[in-house]
Amino acid sequence: MENCGLYLAKMRQTAPLVQNITNYVSMNVMANVMLAAGASPAMVHAREEAAEFAGFTSALSINIGTLSSDWVEAMLSAAEVASKRGIPWVFDPVAAGATAFRRKTSEQIMALHPTIVRGNASEILALAGAIGTGKGVDSSDGVAAAEDGAKRLAKASGAVVAVTGPVDFVTDGRESYRVANGHAMMPLVTALGCSLTGVVAAFAVGQAPLNATVAALAYYGLAGEHAGRTAIGPGSFQVAFIDALHNLMPVQISLGAKVTSA
Amino acid sequence: MENCGLYLAKMRQTAPLVQNITNYVSMNVMANVMLAAGASPAMVHAREEAAEFAGFTSALSINIGTLSSDWVEAMLSAAEVASKRGIPWVFDPVAAGATAFRRKTSEQIMALHPTIVRGNASEILALAGAIGTGKGVDSSDGVAAAEDGAKRLAKASGAVVAVTGPVDFVTDGRESYRVANGHAMMPLVTALGCSLTGVVAAFAVGQAPLNATVAALAYYGLAGEHAGRTAIGPGSFQVAFIDALHNLMPVQISLGAKVTSA
Amino acid sequence: MENCGLYLAKMRQTAPLVQNITNYVSMNVMANVMLAAGASPAMVHAREEAAEFAGFTSALSINIGTLSSDWVEAMLSAAEVASKRGIPWVFDPVAAGATAFRRKTSEQIMALHPTIVRGNASEILALAGAIGTGKGVDSSDGVAAAEDGAKRLAKASGAVVAVTGPVDFVTDGRESYRVANGHAMMPLVTALGCSLTGVVAAFAVGQAPLNATVAALAYYGLAGEHAGRTAIGPGSFQVAFIDALHNLMPVQISLGAKVTSA
Repeated sequence: MENCGLYLAKMRQTAPLVQNITNYVSMNVMANVMLAAGASPAMVHAREEAAEFAGFTSALSINIGTLSSDWVEAMLSAAEVASKRGIPWVFDPVAAGATAFRRKTSEQIMALHPTIVRGNASEILALAGAIGTGKGVDSSDGVAAAEDGAKRLAKASGAVVAVTGPVDFVTDGRESYRVANGHAMMPLVTALGCSLTGVVAAFAVGQAPLNATVAALAYYGLAGEHAGRTAIGPGSFQVAFIDALHNLMPVQISLGAKVTSA
Repeated sequence: MENCGLYLAKMRQTAPLVQNITNYVSMNVMANVMLAAGASPAMVHAREEAAEFAGFTSALSINIGTLSSDWVEAMLSAAEVASKRGIPWVFDPVAAGATAFRRKTSEQIMALHPTIVRGNASEILALAGAIGTGKGVDSSDGVAAAEDGAKRLAKASGAVVAVTGPVDFVTDGRESYRVANGHAMMPLVTALGCSLTGVVAAFAVGQAPLNATVAALAYYGLAGEHAGRTAIGPGSFQVAFIDALHNLMPVQISLGAKVTSA
Repeated sequence: MENCGLYLAKMRQTAPLVQNITNYVSMNVMANVMLAAGASPAMVHAREEAAEFAGFTSALSINIGTLSSDWVEAMLSAAEVASKRGIPWVFDPVAAGATAFRRKTSEQIMALHPTIVRGNASEILALAGAIGTGKGVDSSDGVAAAEDGAKRLAKASGAVVAVTGPVDFVTDGRESYRVANGHAMMPLVTALGCSLTGVVAAFAVGQAPLNATVAALAYYGLAGEHAGRTAIGPGSFQVAFIDALHNLMPVQISLGAKVTSA
């Protein structure tokens, strides 16, 4: 895949409105990440209005990091509207295998056909198990160990599946890519994974889901690499990362993306 | 209006306790902004205690950014206590026109007579429409387009109304001011508008609402200008902005405020 | 007490999973603080899963900063599991004396026998009053004024009690320590106290609660001292503080800790 930067350019031109139903830990940094990238985030999750808002947003992201019954109701109603409208929506199955509540919620969300699923290796494996195509394992799994599960999940669900880690793996079940951009300090800043899910949603507006996801991951990893050049710890890394998301130009993404077919 | 710095000096002398019922996205940065400014923020929003806390706080701010029915109950009960006690309270009508739930909640809050309303042009116009003095329009409105709506809203509600944007407009329906301080990077950091609402509430403790609001806006915009001198992106801007809020002295506000009668 | 750094080294070797039921204001910074220190935080607070998660976490922290009835249920059910399993759990009684709801909740939590209680002077005094060993007073109390209350609370409850402020006081009712590390800018960054509670919980995994608490406080205060050397305001202080938590080595804690018997 070439010219990852074009996907960033297109996203910035439209600055798409993205509704995010996410966890309490990530809300602030996710909004800042998406604003820095050039999208228009809206954190609208209340049962009373989530579905109504999904009726006019350009994309939707759903993250189950901090769940409760009320929120599940909002997630399902918003996802249903998104699926009906045919707008892209992304599911982030945080700790999907950790508790019975999360397993059940994940199944309900998957049944509504997300456009894209983004998680770490353990989450994707748990999800593959939950829908009957594999078996969830613990969080020590590497991305490589989840590649088969990701492919099976993609085929069974029809979603593009992205497994993120030191080297990311993205597949629609037929075509697959690895993205090798990133920095070792990224897991030390909380909610950068959650925030990435919103960026992926923004990239997917009016762009093919598989390519848009690959481009978003390359862009995100490159911002991490830039931040890593000056950061002296996770505090200064987060600041430099937000700056880099804002300052990186499409041509830098096209030149710096480490994307290979898998 | 002269000597905006005096309002900052008075606020810092008393370090007023301000109860904030705000959205999940803004809570952390709002608390940091208010601490940096010199106020004493308390995030107390639970139905079980919001009204009790309103019984002894010095000011109250209410923000509908992330709503739910429980929270509306808390907002209304706290606002009622604040109005009865005659303490200043500020309403921030985030995305007031976006959903039916927000429109209804905004009407209920306005009916309790906030001291000050602070929003962007679209929110103020939506609010002006919601209480029958105008018609809500979409978020592309500039501040200038909202000036008439702001005046009508102020006259109809008895509140000081502040429309913030590149140049802010503040009015009590008779007397009006424009505040031209600020920096283009401020909208790229999430919740800086929400946080300003808490700063306005702190300034209004024991000070005339119209002048206090103008002074708070000038101070806030000046902190943005200072941050803009060294920031290289929205991440470093936020850090420098918090530093500037803490380091700016009253005399710098008096000298740097760009306030004109309107 | 010597070699405070050893407690940091042990904590980092095990990187313990700590479940945190905390307030909305602190969630993000608490997770970042704990990641920077070397622990594995998980923010799991929903009634539907808090107790299940407490069944396999290594430690638990409970903070009542932003309460509601649902959350109290989750707190009590998780604390009960933690007590039964004999894992360390820490209670942070934010504004414990401020409202009737907080007083009642604090009593219910204390009845489940936390391993450690960490609060400011006023909170500890309120708590000492609430369980019948003293009388709550307002938030202007200094740490010294709370030392007797802390000892009584420790004896009555069986918990290690830490009163934090310019000089911290830690006691199990028999043995007591003062920790003089810290920086004047720490109270200007919101939720650093809340975040410390999670760090204390991580230190207490597999280590004696009294010593682990003292070591955690010395480490935290030293990170503040390091941040204070370069910060120019509370914004840059927070960034430098997170960096310092990550970069400080055990030997620096052992050399820099200002711990005395009391």
